[in-house]
Amino acid sequence: MAAKSMTIVMHADDLDKSMAAFILAAGAAAKGMDVTMFFTFWGLMAMKKGGADKVKLSKFRMFTGFMKSTMKKHNVATLDELIKDCGEMGVRMVACEMTMELMNTPKESLRSEITEIGGVGTYLDAAGESNITLFI
Amino acid sequence: MAAKSMTIVMHADDLDKSMAAFILAAGAAAKGMDVTMFFTFWGLMAMKKGGADKVKLSKFRMFTGFMKSTMKKHNVATLDELIKDCGEMGVRMVACEMTMELMNTPKESLRSEITEIGGVGTYLDAAGESNITLFI
Amino acid sequence: MAAKSMTIVMHADDLDKSMAAFILAAGAAAKGMDVTMFFTFWGLMAMKKGGADKVKLSKFRMFTGFMKSTMKKHNVATLDELIKDCGEMGVRMVACEMTMELMNTPKESLRSEITEIGGVGTYLDAAGESNITLFI
Repeated sequence: MAAKSMTIVMHADDLDKSMAAFILAAGAAAKGMDVTMFFTFWGLMAMKKGGADKVKLSKFRMFTGFMKSTMKKHNVATLDELIKDCGEMGVRMVACEMTMELMNTPKESLRSEITEIGGVGTYLDAAGESNITLFI
Repeated sequence: MAAKSMTIVMHADDLDKSMAAFILAAGAAAKGMDVTMFFTFWGLMAMKKGGADKVKLSKFRMFTGFMKSTMKKHNVATLDELIKDCGEMGVRMVACEMTMELMNTPKESLRSEITEIGGVGTYLDAAGESNITLFI
Repeated sequence: MAAKSMTIVMHADDLDKSMAAFILAAGAAAKGMDVTMFFTFWGLMAMKKGGADKVKLSKFRMFTGFMKSTMKKHNVATLDELIKDCGEMGVRMVACEMTMELMNTPKESLRSEITEIGGVGTYLDAAGESNITLFI
């Protein structure tokens, strides 16, 4: 039986949604699932070098610092650490080509876990074979 | 043939998104589908006792009261009623364990329709077998 | 082998999320996939006649005009053009009946690409058979 697979469009860059996405991706990779993340719009902005440290909560944004310290107290990995973990576990991370153009975001401005550039066809090929498809 | 199934990550707590999620869940349960809802972040906050009455529209939040009275005029169930209906129809509602810790939300603060506590593995097991997977 | 299929709940009306949804829909239709879009809440509002020209970015809304001119410079189709393309490529666009009632949005106020009115059952029938299911 083929491994289960999951494909996520990562469109948002909020701390809470990013944490949810990468926790799902890490958990799925740990279970041996094939995971593809396709980064569009704000989601790609969070993947710029240094971007993961700047994201804020989607609500009560002024409590972002409090949430980060709470996460630390509970030994929850930071977003930056989670992205690194996902990269090491083989999560496939694809940058949306159109977003790169529109947002003036060249390859060298993106973190090294992004190893691929692709368009809607790249996404559809992966998602069409996936058991779990999410837009976050 | 196995029943169709749907698994929803409920991350948001906006009135409009919550209504959409529980209307989908109730409709699916009524069709005999297996439905799992996994509550994270703000989505879990709306499942605190009394939480469903406090949620607001994701846009034009000051019109929340107007929307509620419009819903009443059109005989649309309230969010609280919809959650109860889903519970009675056997929708499986799981609280995200990490959110409970980070948001300081013990089991007894959650409404009784939440009958399970789980982590990312719980979600992935359900979603990996589901025909419909959504992140709301 | 049956064609692959995708079903999208279009709940948001932000320029960036709408662009993402219709680019996915157009790309899938171009690959010969069956695509159904089910418009709820704000997503249906963007499908009112003239609605596509009024949508704004989900973040940094005051930069909506700048994003539109950037899109034009890069020869990216406008949202209005994308919706027309999707209609011509046979993307099935369904208006949520309950939203039409609650938002006081009669059929004649919606653009002609919306050719169907349906409820949660309509959505579930399509999504239950789809390879890709998204909530945007």
